[in-house]
Amino acid sequence: MGRWFKRQFEREGYEVLVSDRGTPLNNRDLAKRCEVIFVSVPMPVFGEVVQEIGPLLSEEQGLIDFCSLKKVQNELMLEASKAEVVAAHPLFGPGEKDLEGQKVAMWPSRGRRWFEWFRDFVEDMGGEAIVISPGEHDRVMAIVQVINHFMLLALGRLIEESGIAPDMLKSLATPSFARQLDIVARFADQDPYLYAAIQFDNPEGEEMRRSFLKHVQELADIASRKDLRAFVDLFRRVQGLGEHLKS
Amino acid sequence: MGRWFKRQFEREGYEVLVSDRGTPLNNRDLAKRCEVIFVSVPMPVFGEVVQEIGPLLSEEQGLIDFCSLKKVQNELMLEASKAEVVAAHPLFGPGEKDLEGQKVAMWPSRGRRWFEWFRDFVEDMGGEAIVISPGEHDRVMAIVQVINHFMLLALGRLIEESGIAPDMLKSLATPSFARQLDIVARFADQDPYLYAAIQFDNPEGEEMRRSFLKHVQELADIASRKDLRAFVDLFRRVQGLGEHLKS
Repeated sequence: MGRWFKRQFEREGYEVLVSDRGTPLNNRDLAKRCEVIFVSVPMPVFGEVVQEIGPLLSEEQGLIDFCSLKKVQNELMLEASKAEVVAAHPLFGPGEKDLEGQKVAMWPSRGRRWFEWFRDFVEDMGGEAIVISPGEHDRVMAIVQVINHFMLLALGRLIEESGIAPDMLKSLATPSFARQLDIVARFADQDPYLYAAIQFDNPEGEEMRRSFLKHVQELADIASRKDLRAFVDLFRRVQGLGEHLKS
Repeated sequence: MGRWFKRQFEREGYEVLVSDRGTPLNNRDLAKRCEVIFVSVPMPVFGEVVQEIGPLLSEEQGLIDFCSLKKVQNELMLEASKAEVVAAHPLFGPGEKDLEGQKVAMWPSRGRRWFEWFRDFVEDMGGEAIVISPGEHDRVMAIVQVINHFMLLALGRLIEESGIAPDMLKSLATPSFARQLDIVARFADQDPYLYAAIQFDNPEGEEMRRSFLKHVQELADIASRKDLRAFVDLFRRVQGLGEHLKS
């Protein structure tokens, strides 16, 4: 995503310097020469990079990260530097042509100047800035990613263990379940190690998984004792929500 | 669905007699006068109807039901009559124009003649006959309906209880989760009493729900102790399945 944003900035006339393996410039060079630094690195090395450049930055410089988790990463940036900090997460991949119609979650973690500059850049290019705090971002992602993957894995395991032929399942699928199977199939194409990191690293993941487990347990008990009243109550709560979930 | 099939048969030149509330003919009249009887009634009164007409039918007549569950209903038909029995379940609603492209699950529960006649009718009209035993049908439906609804309800409850604004959830949704939210929204539009019956009445529902709960528990434990090896093993099993789930 770092290289992708470099192209977008250069297209608008910005000078962008890059430090990566094999580049003539290193992280310290950038910290000295740039007004604003984007840290777009794999999460396992993020802390190390921030600790290297953070102390070199002044209060006038900007430090912006692209990590897909935000709470812990934001705290690392605040601790390591006096710079203005923007906690950002582009909600799309480098396969997109430009920012038109794309979303970037972001938060003015320290200062407003670089936040407003980056927000305006995204919006001027036709993108959408979603302003959300690092903690809330991770909580939302704990549902969007952690729980979504979690229930797809549980469903996949159940189907596999049932011994029912996938073809029979597809033959008898309702439109709703046919869509669900399609989501499982696309999900299963992904990299297990990336998806393990998503499960394990989100600081809100554990609580959300426990909450999902609690609801599954509660529902299983209601169905087990055929408690019509409790079931209908519960269904109506979800109906109240359903109205707001329509796309 | 009874009236819907009446139109399809009449279009092909069959004479169809109907017994319903307010019709001149009653169930017993039909049992005496028809070669084959379709029982298309709400499941709570199904047993009563079958016990009324079953004993009046000869070995040459056919008895076909349209219940959305099949195991118990099929046993009722076999016990109540000597007739040939076909356990059928049209997998579509009465909003469809005709049988073209529609699926009907069916099983030759006793005898072949009426089964083959009905199967050929469905296929001649462009439909698809899916031959599946009543027990297997209910097991598949326990995933297609019971578990699908079950996990959607658990997800809905989790979202509701999290207090996260649905708009923020939609803003940060990945394509996969956006599709999931859409499934929840459509699901939530349905009748809670019908969906309670689906949960409570499927004889395989309890076991499937317990199995789903077990997998959720197992996965929560794997994630809790960040057991990468167990997670990747489990993911790979679902990957093996995913290939076969593609539509």
